[in-house]
Amino acid sequence: MFTGLSAFPLTPLRDGLPDQAAFVGLIARLRRAGVDSISILGSTGCAPYLSQQERAEVTRWAIAAAEGIPVIVGISALSTREVVQLARDAEQAGASGVLLAPFSYQPLTEEEVFHLYETVTHQSSLPLCVYDNPRVTRFEFSDALYARIAELPGVASFKIPGGPANPNAARERVEKLRALLPAHITQGVSGDACAATGLNAGCDAWYSVIGGLFPDQALEITRAEPPGAIALSERLTPLWALFTRFGSLRCIASAAEILGLAAPPCLPAPLRALEGEARQELAEVLKRLGLA
Amino acid sequence: MFTGLSAFPLTPLRDGLPDQAAFVGLIARLRRAGVDSISILGSTGCAPYLSQQERAEVTRWAIAAAEGIPVIVGISALSTREVVQLARDAEQAGASGVLLAPFSYQPLTEEEVFHLYETVTHQSSLPLCVYDNPRVTRFEFSDALYARIAELPGVASFKIPGGPANPNAARERVEKLRALLPAHITQGVSGDACAATGLNAGCDAWYSVIGGLFPDQALEITRAEPPGAIALSERLTPLWALFTRFGSLRCIASAAEILGLAAPPCLPAPLRALEGEARQELAEVLKRLGLA
Repeated sequence: MFTGLSAFPLTPLRDGLPDQAAFVGLIARLRRAGVDSISILGSTGCAPYLSQQERAEVTRWAIAAAEGIPVIVGISALSTREVVQLARDAEQAGASGVLLAPFSYQPLTEEEVFHLYETVTHQSSLPLCVYDNPRVTRFEFSDALYARIAELPGVASFKIPGGPANPNAARERVEKLRALLPAHITQGVSGDACAATGLNAGCDAWYSVIGGLFPDQALEITRAEPPGAIALSERLTPLWALFTRFGSLRCIASAAEILGLAAPPCLPAPLRALEGEARQELAEVLKRLGLA
Repeated sequence: MFTGLSAFPLTPLRDGLPDQAAFVGLIARLRRAGVDSISILGSTGCAPYLSQQERAEVTRWAIAAAEGIPVIVGISALSTREVVQLARDAEQAGASGVLLAPFSYQPLTEEEVFHLYETVTHQSSLPLCVYDNPRVTRFEFSDALYARIAELPGVASFKIPGGPANPNAARERVEKLRALLPAHITQGVSGDACAATGLNAGCDAWYSVIGGLFPDQALEITRAEPPGAIALSERLTPLWALFTRFGSLRCIASAAEILGLAAPPCLPAPLRALEGEARQELAEVLKRLGLA
Protein backbone atom coordinates (compact mmCIF):
# COMPACT_ATOMS: atom_id res chain seq x y z
CA MET A 1 0.00 0.00 0.00
CA PHE A 2 2.81 2.46 0.78
CA THR A 3 4.09 2.46 -2.80
CA GLY A 4 3.39 4.41 -5.98
CA LEU A 5 1.45 7.65 -5.82
CA SER A 6 -0.18 8.54 -2.52
CA ALA A 7 -2.32 11.62 -3.08
CA PHE A 8 -2.75 14.13 -0.25
CA PRO A 9 -6.04 16.00 -0.69
CA LEU A 10 -7.05 19.20 1.02
CA THR A 11 -9.87 19.23 3.54
CA PRO A 12 -11.70 22.30 2.19
CA LEU A 13 -13.80 24.25 4.67
CA ARG A 14 -17.02 26.14 4.06
CA ASP A 15 -18.17 28.59 6.72
CA GLY A 16 -15.35 27.27 8.89
CA LEU A 17 -16.48 23.62 8.82
CA PRO A 18 -15.34 20.69 6.65
CA ASP A 19 -17.18 20.91 3.33
CA GLN A 20 -18.43 17.41 2.63
CA ALA A 21 -19.45 18.02 -0.98
CA ALA A 22 -16.15 19.67 -1.94
CA PHE A 23 -14.09 17.06 -0.10
CA VAL A 24 -15.95 14.12 -1.61
CA GLY A 25 -15.51 15.80 -5.00
CA LEU A 26 -11.74 15.82 -4.48
CA ILE A 27 -11.73 12.16 -3.43
CA ALA A 28 -13.78 11.26 -6.51
CA ARG A 29 -11.14 12.95 -8.75
CA LEU A 30 -8.47 10.79 -7.13
CA ARG A 31 -10.54 7.61 -7.50
CA ARG A 32 -11.21 8.31 -11.17
CA ALA A 33 -7.53 9.00 -11.81
CA GLY A 34 -6.61 5.72 -10.13
CA VAL A 35 -4.06 6.88 -7.59
CA ASP A 36 -2.42 4.10 -5.57
CA SER A 37 -3.57 5.44 -2.21
CA ILE A 38 -5.19 8.50 -0.69
CA SER A 39 -3.60 10.08 2.38
CA ILE A 40 -6.13 12.29 4.10
CA LEU A 41 -5.69 14.63 7.05
CA GLY A 42 -1.99 15.22 6.53
CA SER A 43 -0.49 18.71 6.52
CA THR A 44 -2.29 19.47 3.24
CA GLY A 45 -5.44 18.02 4.79
CA CYS A 46 -5.16 20.67 7.54
CA ALA A 47 -5.68 18.01 10.21
CA PRO A 48 -4.17 19.93 13.12
CA TYR A 49 -6.77 22.68 12.64
CA LEU A 50 -9.74 20.30 12.92
CA SER A 51 -11.40 18.77 15.97
CA GLN A 52 -11.16 15.07 16.72
CA GLN A 53 -14.82 14.66 15.81
CA GLU A 54 -14.37 16.45 12.49
CA ARG A 55 -11.39 14.26 11.69
CA ALA A 56 -13.43 11.11 12.33
CA GLU A 57 -16.21 12.42 10.11
CA VAL A 58 -13.83 13.38 7.27
CA THR A 59 -12.29 9.89 7.51
CA ARG A 60 -15.68 8.24 7.03
CA TRP A 61 -16.44 10.46 4.01
CA ALA A 62 -13.11 9.61 2.41
CA ILE A 63 -13.38 5.86 2.88
CA ALA A 64 -16.90 5.81 1.43
CA ALA A 65 -15.89 7.93 -1.59
CA ALA A 66 -12.60 6.12 -2.25
CA GLU A 67 -14.50 2.95 -3.19
CA GLY A 68 -11.72 0.57 -2.29
CA ILE A 69 -8.63 2.68 -2.92
CA PRO A 70 -6.63 2.43 0.32
CA VAL A 71 -7.14 5.43 2.60
CA ILE A 72 -4.27 6.38 4.91
CA VAL A 73 -5.28 8.70 7.75
CA GLY A 74 -3.13 11.35 9.39
CA ILE A 75 -3.27 11.00 13.19
CA SER A 76 -0.79 13.70 14.20
CA ALA A 77 -1.67 15.70 17.32
CA LEU A 78 0.23 17.32 20.14
CA SER A 79 -0.57 14.90 22.93
CA THR A 80 0.05 11.17 22.76
CA ARG A 81 -3.35 10.68 24.34
CA GLU A 82 -5.02 12.36 21.37
CA VAL A 83 -2.87 10.51 18.84
CA VAL A 84 -3.92 7.16 20.33
CA GLN A 85 -7.57 8.19 20.16
CA LEU A 86 -7.19 9.30 16.52
CA ALA A 87 -5.58 5.95 15.66
CA ARG A 88 -8.59 4.19 17.22
CA ASP A 89 -11.02 6.38 15.28
CA ALA A 90 -9.17 5.67 12.01
CA GLU A 91 -9.24 1.94 12.68
CA GLN A 92 -12.95 2.00 13.50
CA ALA A 93 -13.72 3.93 10.32
CA GLY A 94 -11.95 1.27 8.23
CA ALA A 95 -8.73 3.08 7.33
CA SER A 96 -5.99 1.05 5.65
CA GLY A 97 -3.12 2.77 7.43
CA VAL A 98 -2.11 5.78 9.48
CA LEU A 99 0.41 8.56 9.08
CA LEU A 100 2.06 10.15 12.12
CA ALA A 101 4.35 13.18 12.39
CA PRO A 102 6.06 14.17 15.65
CA PHE A 103 4.02 17.35 15.75
CA SER A 104 5.15 19.50 18.65
CA TYR A 105 4.71 22.68 20.63
CA GLN A 106 7.63 22.23 22.98
CA PRO A 107 10.54 21.03 20.82
CA LEU A 108 10.74 17.26 21.38
CA THR A 109 13.71 15.11 22.30
CA GLU A 110 14.60 11.89 20.43
CA GLU A 111 13.48 9.87 23.44
CA GLU A 112 10.09 11.59 23.48
CA VAL A 113 9.56 10.96 19.77
CA PHE A 114 10.55 7.31 20.11
CA HIS A 115 8.09 6.77 22.96
CA LEU A 116 5.33 8.47 20.97
CA TYR A 117 5.75 5.95 18.14
CA GLU A 118 6.18 3.09 20.60
CA THR A 119 2.95 3.91 22.41
CA VAL A 120 0.92 4.32 19.25
CA THR A 121 2.20 1.22 17.46
CA HIS A 122 1.46 -0.87 20.54
CA GLN A 123 -2.10 0.41 20.70
CA SER A 124 -3.02 0.25 17.01
CA SER A 125 -2.92 -2.65 14.59
CA LEU A 126 -2.91 -0.45 11.46
CA PRO A 127 0.29 -0.17 9.42
CA LEU A 128 1.96 3.16 10.10
CA CYS A 129 3.89 5.61 7.98
CA VAL A 130 6.39 7.78 9.86
CA TYR A 131 5.94 11.33 8.65
CA ASP A 132 9.23 13.22 8.70
CA ASN A 133 8.48 16.83 7.84
CA PRO A 134 10.81 19.20 9.69
CA ARG A 135 9.30 22.25 7.98
CA VAL A 136 6.14 21.91 10.07
CA THR A 137 7.25 19.72 12.98
CA ARG A 138 10.65 21.37 13.40
CA PHE A 139 11.93 18.00 14.57
CA GLU A 140 15.00 16.49 12.87
CA PHE A 141 15.10 12.69 12.92
CA SER A 142 18.55 11.13 13.18
CA ASP A 143 19.30 7.99 11.21
CA ALA A 144 19.67 6.16 14.51
CA LEU A 145 16.14 7.15 15.48
CA TYR A 146 14.81 6.01 12.07
CA ALA A 147 16.37 2.61 12.71
CA ARG A 148 14.96 2.38 16.24
CA ILE A 149 11.43 3.33 15.15
CA ALA A 150 11.62 0.98 12.15
CA GLU A 151 11.79 -1.97 14.57
CA LEU A 152 8.43 -1.13 16.11
CA PRO A 153 5.49 -3.35 15.13
CA GLY A 154 3.40 -2.06 12.26
CA VAL A 155 5.86 0.54 10.98
CA ALA A 156 5.58 0.16 7.21
CA SER A 157 6.95 3.29 5.56
CA PHE A 158 8.85 6.52 6.03
CA LYS A 159 7.68 9.71 4.38
CA ILE A 160 11.04 11.43 3.98
CA PRO A 161 11.66 15.11 3.28
CA GLY A 162 12.65 16.17 -0.22
CA GLY A 163 16.24 15.03 -0.55
CA PRO A 164 19.24 16.35 -2.47
CA ALA A 165 18.56 17.72 -5.97
CA ASN A 166 21.72 16.01 -7.19
CA PRO A 167 20.73 12.57 -8.55
CA ASN A 168 23.82 10.79 -7.22
CA ALA A 169 23.46 12.30 -3.77
CA ALA A 170 19.74 11.41 -3.80
CA ARG A 171 20.53 7.81 -4.74
CA GLU A 172 23.18 7.60 -2.01
CA ARG A 173 20.67 8.82 0.56
CA VAL A 174 18.02 6.31 -0.49
CA GLU A 175 20.56 3.47 -0.48
CA LYS A 176 21.84 4.49 2.93
CA LEU A 177 18.31 4.33 4.33
CA ARG A 178 17.65 1.06 2.50
CA ALA A 179 20.63 -0.48 4.29
CA LEU A 180 19.46 0.95 7.61
CA LEU A 181 15.81 -0.10 7.51
CA PRO A 182 14.25 -3.58 7.45
CA ALA A 183 13.42 -4.75 3.90
CA HIS A 184 9.64 -4.57 4.35
CA ILE A 185 9.73 -0.82 5.00
CA THR A 186 9.17 1.51 2.05
CA GLN A 187 10.59 4.98 1.52
CA GLY A 188 8.38 7.69 0.11
CA VAL A 189 9.60 11.05 -1.07
CA SER A 190 7.78 14.27 -0.24
CA GLY A 191 8.47 17.84 -1.28
CA ASP A 192 6.86 17.76 -4.72
CA ALA A 193 9.65 19.58 -6.54
CA CYS A 194 12.12 16.82 -5.57
CA ALA A 195 9.75 13.92 -6.22
CA ALA A 196 10.99 12.89 -9.68
CA THR A 197 14.58 12.90 -8.42
CA GLY A 198 13.54 10.88 -5.37
CA LEU A 199 11.62 8.34 -7.45
CA ASN A 200 14.55 8.00 -9.85
CA ALA A 201 16.82 7.50 -6.86
CA GLY A 202 14.78 4.48 -5.84
CA CYS A 203 12.02 5.77 -3.55
CA ASP A 204 9.06 3.38 -3.50
CA ALA A 205 6.39 6.04 -3.13
CA TRP A 206 5.63 9.68 -3.68
CA TYR A 207 3.63 11.31 -0.90
CA SER A 208 2.30 14.06 -3.07
CA VAL A 209 0.61 17.42 -2.53
CA ILE A 210 -0.15 18.05 -6.21
CA GLY A 211 -1.35 14.45 -6.41
CA GLY A 212 -4.27 15.53 -4.22
CA LEU A 213 -5.51 18.07 -6.76
CA PHE A 214 -3.84 17.12 -10.05
CA PRO A 215 -3.67 13.33 -9.85
CA ASP A 216 -3.26 12.77 -13.60
CA GLN A 217 -0.11 14.88 -13.78
CA ALA A 218 1.30 13.32 -10.60
CA LEU A 219 0.58 9.80 -11.91
CA GLU A 220 2.30 10.63 -15.18
CA ILE A 221 5.46 11.62 -13.27
CA THR A 222 5.22 8.59 -10.96
CA ARG A 223 4.85 6.13 -13.82
CA ALA A 224 7.26 7.68 -16.32
CA GLU A 225 10.68 6.16 -17.03
CA PRO A 226 13.44 8.08 -15.21
CA PRO A 227 14.45 10.75 -17.77
CA GLY A 228 10.83 11.39 -18.66
CA ALA A 229 9.85 11.90 -15.01
CA ILE A 230 12.45 14.63 -14.58
CA ALA A 231 11.30 16.42 -17.73
CA LEU A 232 7.65 16.22 -16.67
CA SER A 233 8.53 17.59 -13.25
CA GLU A 234 10.69 20.37 -14.68
CA ARG A 235 7.74 21.51 -16.77
CA LEU A 236 6.03 22.33 -13.47
CA THR A 237 8.91 24.52 -12.22
CA PRO A 238 6.77 27.70 -12.12
CA LEU A 239 4.41 25.88 -9.75
CA TRP A 240 7.28 24.62 -7.56
CA ALA A 241 8.57 28.21 -7.38
CA LEU A 242 5.20 29.37 -6.03
CA PHE A 243 5.23 26.49 -3.51
CA THR A 244 8.59 27.74 -2.26
CA ARG A 245 7.43 31.33 -1.98
CA PHE A 246 4.01 30.80 -0.38
CA GLY A 247 3.99 27.22 0.92
CA SER A 248 2.40 24.36 -0.99
CA LEU A 249 -0.77 24.38 1.12
CA ARG A 250 -1.66 28.01 0.38
CA CYS A 251 -1.00 27.42 -3.33
CA ILE A 252 -3.03 24.22 -3.57
CA ALA A 253 -5.92 25.68 -1.59
CA SER A 254 -5.92 28.73 -3.86
CA ALA A 255 -5.79 26.47 -6.92
CA ALA A 256 -8.78 24.48 -5.66
CA GLU A 257 -10.68 27.75 -5.22
CA ILE A 258 -9.63 28.99 -8.68
CA LEU A 259 -10.78 25.69 -10.23
CA GLY A 260 -14.13 25.95 -8.46
CA LEU A 261 -13.43 22.77 -6.48
CA ALA A 262 -13.62 24.56 -3.12
CA ALA A 263 -15.44 27.67 -1.96
CA PRO A 264 -13.23 30.54 -0.75
CA PRO A 265 -12.07 30.85 1.96
CA CYS A 266 -11.43 27.09 2.13
CA LEU A 267 -8.46 27.24 4.53
CA PRO A 268 -8.89 27.31 8.32
CA ALA A 269 -8.07 30.75 9.77
CA PRO A 270 -5.52 32.02 10.59
CA LEU A 271 -4.27 30.45 7.32
CA ARG A 272 -5.11 32.51 4.25
CA ALA A 273 -5.08 31.56 0.60
CA LEU A 274 -3.14 33.70 -1.87
CA GLU A 275 -4.54 37.15 -2.54
CA GLY A 276 -4.07 39.91 -5.10
CA GLU A 277 -1.07 39.64 -7.40
CA ALA A 278 0.12 36.33 -5.98
CA ARG A 279 -3.25 34.74 -6.68
CA GLN A 280 -3.27 36.21 -10.18
CA GLU A 281 0.19 34.80 -10.77
CA LEU A 282 -0.92 31.35 -9.64
CA ALA A 283 -3.97 31.50 -11.93
CA GLU A 284 -1.72 32.33 -14.88
CA VAL A 285 0.73 29.54 -14.06
CA LEU A 286 -2.11 27.02 -13.81
CA LYS A 287 -3.44 28.14 -17.17
CA ARG A 288 -0.05 28.09 -18.85
CA LEU A 289 0.62 24.57 -17.53
CA GLY A 290 -2.76 23.32 -18.68
CA LEU A 291 -3.91 22.74 -15.10
CA ALA A 292 -6.83 25.20 -15.25
CA MET B 1 -2.35 44.25 35.77
CA PHE B 2 0.39 43.50 33.24
CA THR B 3 3.16 44.77 35.54
CA GLY B 4 5.40 43.32 38.22
CA LEU B 5 5.71 39.56 38.59
CA SER B 6 3.33 37.42 36.59
CA ALA B 7 3.81 33.82 37.66
CA PHE B 8 3.32 31.00 35.12
CA PRO B 9 2.34 27.81 36.96
CA LEU B 10 2.42 24.31 35.53
CA THR B 11 -0.79 22.40 34.95
CA PRO B 12 0.31 19.11 36.52
CA LEU B 13 -1.40 15.97 35.27
CA ARG B 14 -2.23 12.80 37.18
CA ASP B 15 -3.13 9.69 35.19
CA GLY B 16 -3.10 11.92 32.11
CA LEU B 17 -5.71 14.39 33.37
CA PRO B 18 -5.32 17.80 35.04
CA ASP B 19 -4.67 17.21 38.74
CA GLN B 20 -6.96 19.61 40.57
CA ALA B 21 -5.39 19.18 44.00
CA ALA B 22 -1.83 19.67 42.75
CA PHE B 23 -2.79 22.64 40.57
CA VAL B 24 -4.75 24.37 43.31
CA GLY B 25 -1.77 23.76 45.59
CA LEU B 26 0.47 25.62 43.15
CA ILE B 27 -2.00 28.51 42.89
CA ALA B 28 -2.19 28.72 46.69
CA ARG B 29 1.63 29.06 46.87
CA LEU B 30 1.42 31.99 44.45
CA ARG B 31 -1.40 33.63 46.38
CA ARG B 32 0.47 33.32 49.67
CA ALA B 33 3.63 34.77 48.14
CA GLY B 34 1.62 37.72 46.80
CA VAL B 35 2.59 37.64 43.12
CA ASP B 36 1.15 40.48 41.03
CA SER B 37 -0.70 38.20 38.63
CA ILE B 38 -1.01 34.52 37.73
CA SER B 39 -0.76 33.51 34.08
CA ILE B 40 -2.21 30.06 33.64
CA LEU B 41 -2.27 27.84 30.56
CA GLY B 42 0.77 29.35 28.92
CA SER B 43 3.60 27.22 27.55
CA THR B 44 4.55 26.20 31.09
CA GLY B 45 0.87 25.52 31.73
CA CYS B 46 0.96 22.97 28.87
CA ALA B 47 -2.21 24.47 27.38
CA PRO B 48 -1.75 23.17 23.84
CA TYR B 49 -1.79 19.60 25.17
CA LEU B 50 -5.16 19.99 26.92
CA SER B 51 -8.68 19.90 25.53
CA GLN B 52 -10.85 23.00 25.40
CA GLN B 53 -13.02 21.59 28.17
CA GLU B 54 -10.00 20.87 30.39
CA ARG B 55 -8.74 24.40 29.82
CA ALA B 56 -12.09 25.86 30.90
CA GLU B 57 -12.06 23.69 34.00
CA VAL B 58 -8.47 24.61 34.93
CA THR B 59 -9.39 28.29 34.49
CA ARG B 60 -12.24 27.98 36.97
CA TRP B 61 -9.99 26.23 39.50
CA ALA B 62 -7.35 28.94 39.19
CA ILE B 63 -9.74 31.87 39.59
CA ALA B 64 -11.34 30.32 42.66
CA ALA B 65 -7.96 29.58 44.26
CA ALA B 66 -6.36 32.93 43.38
CA GLU B 67 -8.77 34.75 45.70
CA GLY B 68 -8.64 38.04 43.86
CA ILE B 69 -5.14 37.99 42.40
CA PRO B 70 -5.67 38.70 38.66
CA VAL B 71 -5.65 35.53 36.56
CA ILE B 72 -4.48 35.84 32.95
CA VAL B 73 -5.47 32.90 30.76
CA GLY B 74 -3.52 31.52 27.79
CA ILE B 75 -5.82 31.11 24.79
CA SER B 76 -3.31 29.96 22.18
CA ALA B 77 -4.52 27.33 19.74
CA LEU B 78 -3.91 26.48 16.09
CA SER B 79 -7.20 27.63 14.63
CA THR B 80 -8.65 31.09 15.06
CA ARG B 81 -12.02 29.46 15.65
CA GLU B 82 -10.66 27.68 18.72
CA VAL B 83 -8.83 30.78 19.98
CA VAL B 84 -12.07 32.79 19.87
CA GLN B 85 -13.89 30.06 21.80
CA LEU B 86 -11.12 29.93 24.41
CA ALA B 87 -11.32 33.71 24.82
CA ARG B 88 -15.07 33.35 25.43
CA ASP B 89 -14.51 30.58 27.96
CA ALA B 90 -11.91 32.69 29.79
CA GLU B 91 -14.26 35.66 29.91
CA GLN B 92 -17.13 33.54 31.20
CA ALA B 93 -14.93 32.06 33.92
CA GLY B 94 -14.03 35.55 35.15
CA ALA B 95 -10.47 35.87 33.87
CA SER B 96 -8.80 39.28 34.14
CA GLY B 97 -6.96 39.03 30.83
CA VAL B 98 -5.80 36.71 28.10
CA LEU B 99 -2.46 35.75 26.63
CA LEU B 100 -2.15 34.77 22.97
CA ALA B 101 0.81 33.38 21.01
CA PRO B 102 0.73 32.90 17.23
CA PHE B 103 0.98 29.15 17.72
CA SER B 104 1.30 27.47 14.36
CA TYR B 105 1.60 24.23 12.42
CA GLN B 106 2.05 25.73 8.98
CA PRO B 107 4.51 28.62 9.42
CA LEU B 108 2.39 31.79 9.49
CA THR B 109 2.75 34.99 7.50
CA GLU B 110 2.67 38.46 9.11
CA GLU B 111 -0.74 39.06 7.55
CA GLU B 112 -2.13 35.85 9.03
CA VAL B 113 -0.82 36.72 12.49
CA PHE B 114 -2.23 40.24 12.29
CA HIS B 115 -5.67 38.92 11.33
CA LEU B 116 -5.57 36.40 14.16
CA TYR B 117 -5.09 39.21 16.70
CA GLU B 118 -7.61 41.42 14.92
CA THR B 119 -10.31 38.74 15.00
CA VAL B 120 -9.75 37.87 18.64
CA THR B 121 -9.54 41.43 19.95
CA HIS B 122 -12.78 42.28 18.14
CA GLN B 123 -14.57 39.34 19.70
CA SER B 124 -13.30 39.60 23.27
CA SER B 125 -13.45 42.48 25.70
CA LEU B 126 -10.64 41.17 27.93
CA PRO B 127 -7.26 42.93 27.87
CA LEU B 128 -4.78 40.91 25.85
CA CYS B 129 -1.09 40.22 26.18
CA VAL B 130 0.70 39.41 22.91
CA TYR B 131 2.89 36.40 23.57
CA ASP B 132 6.05 36.52 21.46
CA ASN B 133 7.89 33.24 21.99
CA PRO B 134 9.69 32.17 18.81
CA ARG B 135 11.19 29.11 20.54
CA VAL B 136 7.78 27.40 20.54
CA THR B 137 5.82 29.33 17.90
CA ARG B 138 8.74 29.64 15.46
CA PHE B 139 7.21 32.93 14.37
CA GLU B 140 9.37 36.07 14.39
CA PHE B 141 7.45 39.31 14.93
CA SER B 142 8.79 42.36 13.13
CA ASP B 143 8.71 45.72 14.90
CA ALA B 144 6.23 46.88 12.25
CA LEU B 145 3.87 44.04 13.17
CA TYR B 146 4.22 44.87 16.90
CA ALA B 147 3.16 48.43 16.09
CA ARG B 148 0.20 47.30 13.98
CA ILE B 149 -1.07 44.85 16.60
CA ALA B 150 -0.56 47.42 19.36
CA GLU B 151 -3.27 49.58 17.75
CA LEU B 152 -5.91 46.87 18.14
CA PRO B 153 -8.51 47.36 20.89
CA GLY B 154 -7.68 45.66 24.17
CA VAL B 155 -4.02 45.00 23.47
CA ALA B 156 -2.40 45.79 26.81
CA SER B 157 1.02 44.16 26.93
CA PHE B 158 3.74 42.36 24.98
CA LYS B 159 5.50 39.37 26.45
CA ILE B 160 8.83 39.75 24.72
CA PRO B 161 11.56 37.12 24.35
CA GLY B 162 14.63 37.33 26.56
CA GLY B 163 16.61 40.21 25.11
CA PRO B 164 20.32 40.98 24.89
CA ALA B 165 22.44 40.07 27.92
CA ASN B 166 24.33 43.35 27.57
CA PRO B 167 22.60 45.94 29.81
CA ASN B 168 23.03 48.81 27.34
CA ALA B 169 21.72 46.79 24.42
CA ALA B 170 18.78 45.60 26.55
CA ARG B 171 17.93 49.19 27.50
CA GLU B 172 18.14 50.29 23.86
CA ARG B 173 15.74 47.53 22.84
CA VAL B 174 13.21 48.43 25.57
CA GLU B 175 13.43 52.11 24.67
CA LYS B 176 12.99 51.37 20.99
CA LEU B 177 9.81 49.41 21.74
CA ARG B 178 8.64 52.11 24.15
CA ALA B 179 8.88 54.65 21.32
CA LEU B 180 7.08 52.31 18.95
CA LEU B 181 4.14 51.27 21.15
CA PRO B 182 1.32 53.40 22.62
CA ALA B 183 2.04 54.54 26.18
CA HIS B 184 -0.62 52.35 27.81
CA ILE B 185 1.05 49.14 26.61
CA THR B 186 3.45 47.41 28.96
CA GLN B 187 6.48 45.31 28.08
CA GLY B 188 7.18 42.13 29.96
CA VAL B 189 10.38 40.17 29.74
CA SER B 190 10.42 36.39 29.48
CA GLY B 191 13.30 33.93 29.40
CA ASP B 192 14.01 33.74 33.11
CA ALA B 193 17.79 33.97 32.83
CA CYS B 194 17.47 37.42 31.17
CA ALA B 195 14.74 38.71 33.45
CA ALA B 196 16.85 40.79 35.82
CA THR B 197 18.59 42.45 32.88
CA GLY B 198 15.21 43.09 31.24
CA LEU B 199 13.71 44.57 34.41
CA ASN B 200 16.77 46.78 34.89
CA ALA B 201 16.42 47.88 31.29
CA GLY B 202 12.93 49.17 32.03
CA CYS B 203 10.55 46.27 31.38
CA ASP B 204 7.30 46.71 33.31
CA ALA B 205 6.72 43.04 33.97
CA TRP B 206 8.40 39.67 34.25
CA TYR B 207 6.44 36.80 32.73
CA SER B 208 8.16 34.17 34.79
CA VAL B 209 8.50 30.39 34.69
CA ILE B 210 10.28 30.10 38.04
CA GLY B 211 7.70 32.51 39.44
CA GLY B 212 5.15 29.71 38.99
CA LEU B 213 7.00 27.36 41.35
CA PHE B 214 9.38 29.58 43.35
CA PRO B 215 7.40 32.80 43.72
CA ASP B 216 9.39 34.12 46.71
CA GLN B 217 12.68 34.02 44.82
CA ALA B 218 11.11 35.55 41.70
CA LEU B 219 9.50 38.33 43.74
CA GLU B 220 12.81 39.08 45.41
CA ILE B 221 14.42 39.58 41.98
CA THR B 222 11.46 41.60 40.69
CA ARG B 223 11.44 43.96 43.66
CA ALA B 224 15.20 44.33 44.20
CA GLU B 225 17.07 47.49 43.26
CA PRO B 226 18.94 47.03 39.94
CA PRO B 227 22.36 45.76 41.08
CA GLY B 228 20.74 43.47 43.63
CA ALA B 229 18.41 41.93 41.03
CA ILE B 230 21.35 40.93 38.85
CA ALA B 231 23.18 39.36 41.77
CA LEU B 232 20.09 37.44 42.88
CA SER B 233 19.57 36.18 39.34
CA GLU B 234 23.23 35.22 38.94
CA ARG B 235 22.95 33.08 42.05
CA LEU B 236 20.49 30.94 40.08
CA THR B 237 22.91 30.41 37.16
CA PRO B 238 23.08 26.61 37.68
CA LEU B 239 19.29 26.48 37.25
CA TRP B 240 19.37 28.68 34.12
CA ALA B 241 22.00 26.33 32.69
CA LEU B 242 19.67 23.37 33.18
CA PHE B 243 16.82 25.36 31.55
CA THR B 244 19.05 25.86 28.50
CA ARG B 245 20.00 22.19 28.32
CA PHE B 246 16.60 20.60 28.88
CA GLY B 247 14.01 23.34 28.39
CA SER B 248 12.49 25.26 31.32
CA LEU B 249 9.25 23.23 31.22
CA ARG B 250 10.94 19.84 31.72
CA CYS B 251 13.06 21.32 34.56
CA ILE B 252 10.16 22.97 36.36
CA ALA B 253 7.93 19.90 36.02
CA SER B 254 10.74 17.74 37.39
CA ALA B 255 11.28 20.22 40.24
CA ALA B 256 7.58 20.10 41.11
CA GLU B 257 7.78 16.31 41.24
CA ILE B 258 10.97 16.40 43.34
CA LEU B 259 9.33 18.83 45.78
CA GLY B 260 6.28 16.56 46.04
CA LEU B 261 4.02 19.25 44.58
CA ALA B 262 3.04 17.09 41.59
CA ALA B 263 2.83 13.34 41.08
CA PRO B 264 5.16 11.88 38.42
CA PRO B 265 4.64 11.77 35.48
CA CYS B 266 3.03 15.23 35.65
CA LEU B 267 3.79 16.25 32.03
CA PRO B 268 1.51 15.33 29.11
CA ALA B 269 3.07 12.65 26.90
CA PRO B 270 5.00 12.77 24.66
CA LEU B 271 6.75 15.27 26.95
CA ARG B 272 8.93 13.65 29.60
CA ALA B 273 10.39 15.06 32.78
CA LEU B 274 14.12 14.68 33.44
CA GLU B 275 15.34 11.19 34.17
CA GLY B 276 18.46 9.55 35.58
CA GLU B 277 21.53 11.73 35.95
CA ALA B 278 19.84 14.88 34.68
CA ARG B 279 17.16 14.57 37.33
CA GLN B 280 19.78 13.91 40.01
CA GLU B 281 21.68 16.99 38.89
CA LEU B 282 18.52 19.12 39.11
CA ALA B 283 17.77 17.78 42.60
CA GLU B 284 21.29 18.75 43.72
CA VAL B 285 21.02 22.23 42.19
CA LEU B 286 17.68 22.82 43.91
CA LYS B 287 19.17 21.75 47.24
CA ARG B 288 22.31 23.87 46.82
CA LEU B 289 20.21 26.94 45.95
CA GLY B 290 17.91 26.40 48.91
CA LEU B 291 14.94 25.71 46.65
CA ALA B 292 14.36 22.15 47.92
